Amino acid sequence: MVNVYDQANALESALRQSEEFKALESFYKAVNENEDSKKLFDEFREVQMELQLKQMQGEEMLDSDIERAQQTAQSVEEDENIKQLMEAEQKLSMLIQDLNRVIMKPIEELYKVNE
Amino acid sequence: MVNVYDQANALESALRQSEEFKALESFYKAVNENEDSKKLFDEFREVQMELQLKQMQGEEMLDSDIERAQQTAQSVEEDENIKQLMEAEQKLSMLIQDLNRVIMKPIEELYKVNE
Repeated sequence: MVNVYDQANALESALRQSEEFKALESFYKAVNENEDSKKLFDEFREVQMELQLKQMQGEEMLDSDIERAQQTAQSVEEDENIKQLMEAEQKLSMLIQDLNRVIMKPIEELYKVNE
Repeated sequence: MVNVYDQANALESALRQSEEFKALESFYKAVNENEDSKKLFDEFREVQMELQLKQMQGEEMLDSDIERAQQTAQSVEEDENIKQLMEAEQKLSMLIQDLNRVIMKPIEELYKVNE
């Protein structure tokens, strides 16, 4: 019988060798090796997390919060390194969604047949 | 180069042949083929969905809601078919979590190294 863990490891290795993952790896490196990009990216993530937290806690958004979020989002848009990284993240995330859809087919089918 | 989709299909096939999936399949069949179990299982899911919806909409839980939920939960506990199905669901869900952890290793590692 085929072992599921062996197959999961084989898929892990294929994913690691995929164009999508290699692109993410190289753009991630580019951002981390560029001081300006790295600083901006860290700030962007920080602002996003702060706003998410505020939203979750039901706190009011100040005009200054919104302005800061818009400013960092725009700076990120203008940074070629970060832009490429975010595109690579999105492509990999779409690939993973596709793979999950493939893997989950048996379960989906089971529950559909008996509905 | 190894194709990720081929590997995902191989994993899908291994999952379909796994003891965990076969158990789920057979207990699901047992519940659906037994009129009492089927009726009870449908009711249990209906009650759970209703209560979830109420919670999401911020509606108040009535004593009668809670009582009905407790009653169906207890009946489900006493139905050997459903009990086995729910145990099988849990085992498969744990297996899938494990597999996901394996597959996602490259991405987890990438983001950890650069933190």
